Amino acid sequence: MAPSTALRGVVPPVCTPLTPESEVDAPSLERLIAHLLDAGVDGLFVLGSTSEVAFLTDAHRARVLEIAVNTVAGRVPVVAGVIDTTTPRVTEHIRVAEKCGADGVVATAPFYTRTHPAEIDTHFRMLRAASDLPVIAYDLPVSVHTKLGVAHLATLARDGVIRAVKDSSGDEGALRRLLLETADVADFTVLTGSELTVDTAFRMGAHGVVPGLGNVDPHGYVRLRDLTAAGDWDAAKTEQERLIALFGLVDAGAPERMGRGSSALGAFKAALHLLGLIDCPATAAPQIPLNAAEIADVRAHLVRAGLLAT
Amino acid sequence: MAPSTALRGVVPPVCTPLTPESEVDAPSLERLIAHLLDAGVDGLFVLGSTSEVAFLTDAHRARVLEIAVNTVAGRVPVVAGVIDTTTPRVTEHIRVAEKCGADGVVATAPFYTRTHPAEIDTHFRMLRAASDLPVIAYDLPVSVHTKLGVAHLATLARDGVIRAVKDSSGDEGALRRLLLETADVADFTVLTGSELTVDTAFRMGAHGVVPGLGNVDPHGYVRLRDLTAAGDWDAAKTEQERLIALFGLVDAGAPERMGRGSSALGAFKAALHLLGLIDCPATAAPQIPLNAAEIADVRAHLVRAGLLAT
Amino acid sequence: MAPSTALRGVVPPVCTPLTPESEVDAPSLERLIAHLLDAGVDGLFVLGSTSEVAFLTDAHRARVLEIAVNTVAGRVPVVAGVIDTTTPRVTEHIRVAEKCGADGVVATAPFYTRTHPAEIDTHFRMLRAASDLPVIAYDLPVSVHTKLGVAHLATLARDGVIRAVKDSSGDEGALRRLLLETADVADFTVLTGSELTVDTAFRMGAHGVVPGLGNVDPHGYVRLRDLTAAGDWDAAKTEQERLIALFGLVDAGAPERMGRGSSALGAFKAALHLLGLIDCPATAAPQIPLNAAEIADVRAHLVRAGLLAT
Amino acid sequence: MAPSTALRGVVPPVCTPLTPESEVDAPSLERLIAHLLDAGVDGLFVLGSTSEVAFLTDAHRARVLEIAVNTVAGRVPVVAGVIDTTTPRVTEHIRVAEKCGADGVVATAPFYTRTHPAEIDTHFRMLRAASDLPVIAYDLPVSVHTKLGVAHLATLARDGVIRAVKDSSGDEGALRRLLLETADVADFTVLTGSELTVDTAFRMGAHGVVPGLGNVDPHGYVRLRDLTAAGDWDAAKTEQERLIALFGLVDAGAPERMGRGSSALGAFKAALHLLGLIDCPATAAPQIPLNAAEIADVRAHLVRAGLLAT
Repeated sequence: MAPSTALRGVVPPVCTPLTPESEVDAPSLERLIAHLLDAGVDGLFVLGSTSEVAFLTDAHRARVLEIAVNTVAGRVPVVAGVIDTTTPRVTEHIRVAEKCGADGVVATAPFYTRTHPAEIDTHFRMLRAASDLPVIAYDLPVSVHTKLGVAHLATLARDGVIRAVKDSSGDEGALRRLLLETADVADFTVLTGSELTVDTAFRMGAHGVVPGLGNVDPHGYVRLRDLTAAGDWDAAKTEQERLIALFGLVDAGAPERMGRGSSALGAFKAALHLLGLIDCPATAAPQIPLNAAEIADVRAHLVRAGLLAT
Repeated sequence: MAPSTALRGVVPPVCTPLTPESEVDAPSLERLIAHLLDAGVDGLFVLGSTSEVAFLTDAHRARVLEIAVNTVAGRVPVVAGVIDTTTPRVTEHIRVAEKCGADGVVATAPFYTRTHPAEIDTHFRMLRAASDLPVIAYDLPVSVHTKLGVAHLATLARDGVIRAVKDSSGDEGALRRLLLETADVADFTVLTGSELTVDTAFRMGAHGVVPGLGNVDPHGYVRLRDLTAAGDWDAAKTEQERLIALFGLVDAGAPERMGRGSSALGAFKAALHLLGLIDCPATAAPQIPLNAAEIADVRAHLVRAGLLAT
Repeated sequence: MAPSTALRGVVPPVCTPLTPESEVDAPSLERLIAHLLDAGVDGLFVLGSTSEVAFLTDAHRARVLEIAVNTVAGRVPVVAGVIDTTTPRVTEHIRVAEKCGADGVVATAPFYTRTHPAEIDTHFRMLRAASDLPVIAYDLPVSVHTKLGVAHLATLARDGVIRAVKDSSGDEGALRRLLLETADVADFTVLTGSELTVDTAFRMGAHGVVPGLGNVDPHGYVRLRDLTAAGDWDAAKTEQERLIALFGLVDAGAPERMGRGSSALGAFKAALHLLGLIDCPATAAPQIPLNAAEIADVRAHLVRAGLLAT
Repeated sequence: MAPSTALRGVVPPVCTPLTPESEVDAPSLERLIAHLLDAGVDGLFVLGSTSEVAFLTDAHRARVLEIAVNTVAGRVPVVAGVIDTTTPRVTEHIRVAEKCGADGVVATAPFYTRTHPAEIDTHFRMLRAASDLPVIAYDLPVSVHTKLGVAHLATLARDGVIRAVKDSSGDEGALRRLLLETADVADFTVLTGSELTVDTAFRMGAHGVVPGLGNVDPHGYVRLRDLTAAGDWDAAKTEQERLIALFGLVDAGAPERMGRGSSALGAFKAALHLLGLIDCPATAAPQIPLNAAEIADVRAHLVRAGLLAT
């Protein structure tokens, strides 16, 4: 990822279509990626949380990355999640990402193990030293149970350890402090992981967005990008609010029956299936599938958002 | 693990000695295992948290398990941690455990992903279906950020899904309720992961203990087992209190410099090194190593516990 | 609380009977206290979590304490919870406790506000300086969201700041370390707040227990005290296990309808009402009341425990 | 608070100046309030977290509210925090707020006790029924350890239970969903508690802001309000960024010595003292005071923000 290809703009975290046998569904993934590229996205993030990375075996992960790199064929940067518990395991995923031709790797702080800032610091510095690939720090406290500190991220940016941050903490105050603290670091970018505050994140100076909902409606996020770039903030607000209403589909799955991850990922995949982009809406085990009524709710959201005729 | 070899008694979670190059140190591991067997332990748990499983690559994990199975040569059961984020990844580790000849596998609830009891239930049932190896549920909320419920564990036990529980939750009230609720389940065993309450756990009816400190002083835990079996509760209390004092070594590492995991695992390995059992006290990255003063503190604990001459 | 009346033995946290109009029901409270004293308890803890202290106005709190002190009339120590967010507010409650004739006060770390160990330390030292009443530290992380550290509590004990600890953390390993670290502090006592591990807590050297379930079955806890004092650990275990089965009543309230506090306190009060000890089983707002089926479940527990004829 | 005086615009949570003897410093409070009114704020929120409400006795709370109501003399609405653990205790504070002439009350979900959504719902409905004062829901998970749900708040708004929400959750995605879900509820307002994202919150449609930093620089927040009202978003951004830099003063206190509350409230009061607005910078016990170097850091922030000559 040369400076000229720094991660910015709309970078969807690509869903991983699966066959009914829980294998990676290559044709569906290719179709989904083509759809995203056609819509005008600026990059792809594969093997993130929205990609069900935590549910994919190493073979599945490598397969997904190969398909993505081949399908994209250099048109936009493809960055790969290297999500695992600690430095040695993450480093192995970096080796694979290098081999497969990723343009960057996206890594969290260590998890499962209890961490200390000094350990997190060592972790990112060792990942940086492990390859030439740019390292993107992934701040996802809901999964990692640690919030990366603003001052720490700014130091890592300034020291050239990380090239970007994907902020999925939902803490917009911290996001904004980070933007100000790193404003003078050349080629450093900050991307928000929130689907719901993209126009305001761009107003704050964020360089891009990694919207899970961008799988379902990439054109919406591309429009949002273009409207904000053009300074048409009112139209951007209207577009953002349409996407917020669409985002309601993540609550389709009943909380009595399943976790919020099963619901959100199940809804994204149900939507992609209803839109004809993937062949099978299955999520990986042990997630709970949506039932017919819940899928009808997803469909209703698509119709209301203008993505599907009634 | 036939019923006759059910997991019970003293089952240390074996430390993983590393070389200065961060490779598995086979001779040291063999020496450590021989030391544990000589002391009279009833089983070994490899690839658990104390084994730094979260820091070991898949190749390292397989190597550790091979060494353990070969060294033990059937004298006691060897169970293997299959610690990973979700069902598909854990299932891959079960395949390796089968191939390497483990007598059982130890699995947590899913982590990193947000979970729901229905998903945890599916997870354990799929793990059970994946192989003939007995499944041991590992309750470790500090790492997994979920507490396995007493009623849920009892149902899984009664349904033959799990053969044992390793309770590292520190919640002795729940441990005791679990013991009562599963008292009538044939061949089901409950082991405590707490080093500090072994005599009382045995009084409650616990079937065994998985003491990290058992790496450093296996004879102490074997004595504790034998004293409680003999009904000599006062001597057991004295022995337990000696071990509690020894356990203080886990706080050797300064909290300003490192996390509690670095401190505890660093202290166990420093102790094993001081006792001449392993060649190198290094822990895996990104853990912070103990410094000389901290190692001296570990040494002082060993001396006070009678394990080392001054 | 002179050394001779140090807090030890069975010290139930007394439920606060309410009228249907949510006023303190003095006759019921007197009857409940008489029942506890008749059973042979060693002290009373009023205005704790089991007393619904967080739901009582200051006037209600003073009324409860007056009734308790008058009813007990010096036969056993009466300690009073002074539960509030920070030092100035807790100090006001201490003033009232002094005026009403309490023998000691029970205080948590600050809550609602974010705390630091240095602030907790200042808090307890200021409470100590505020009156001559002995201060008992109440470790209740589920409510306070801070765990009091073993080393910190030992220092406070050694410095004469606190006279006792009521440990409701459920962390028996820490409880045991605390017992060892304070073993040499004269007149210092450690009481467990867990109903489920009293025999083993006494084996570890705990000086007493503060069992919420002791409202419902004080005779059981007194027997447990006497059996352990006599060294009859097997009979103690049997009694403890009967009480554990009885404790199952705290889960009477459906988790879909109410929180665990509503369920446990509602079940204790339903049991006291079924036993004829209090006139009205109401809990304070905004707790959700048990319904008829749930009360029938409480009754079934009482019958099985031998406290009620069918 | 008639509809025409709905809570909106800049509503600082007023600091509570204390004397060296920890009494409410009336002249300083009057001076601070006059300063805020002169700057053009739209309302005042007394007895919130920034007011150290958790550290104020009931007498102190009543005194603060009396002073505020008298000093404001109806020029803007004055709303009062009624922060306490549960419904009966909060209701008592509402009685006092009524008597003192508050224009509305600000209440959190229950805390200290473990809560369930059904209990939180009952809580707010009972508070509404307890007086004619408008109820403002205060969403502050860092203190209350519960996040109020978007759908729940929208229902409470629609049912006329709450008149406004003060969102201090830091979760801007949820804030925005709440704004959209309540857009059609007449006279209902949503205020952000974040100092750092005011321009973007206004862009999303938020009706106001409750900025702790507004004590120190009310003119800045009034300018921000006016610039966004005028649609001058670029100038608003510049002003917001100046305020973000100023906000850095909350980190003045060393994390080794004190909690983040001590640091932030100590810094606000140190700044007010340096600006000559209050006579004494003391915070309430058991908070740790800033030292000279830390106060110098606060001063440096004021100078850089243009609030103080060097």
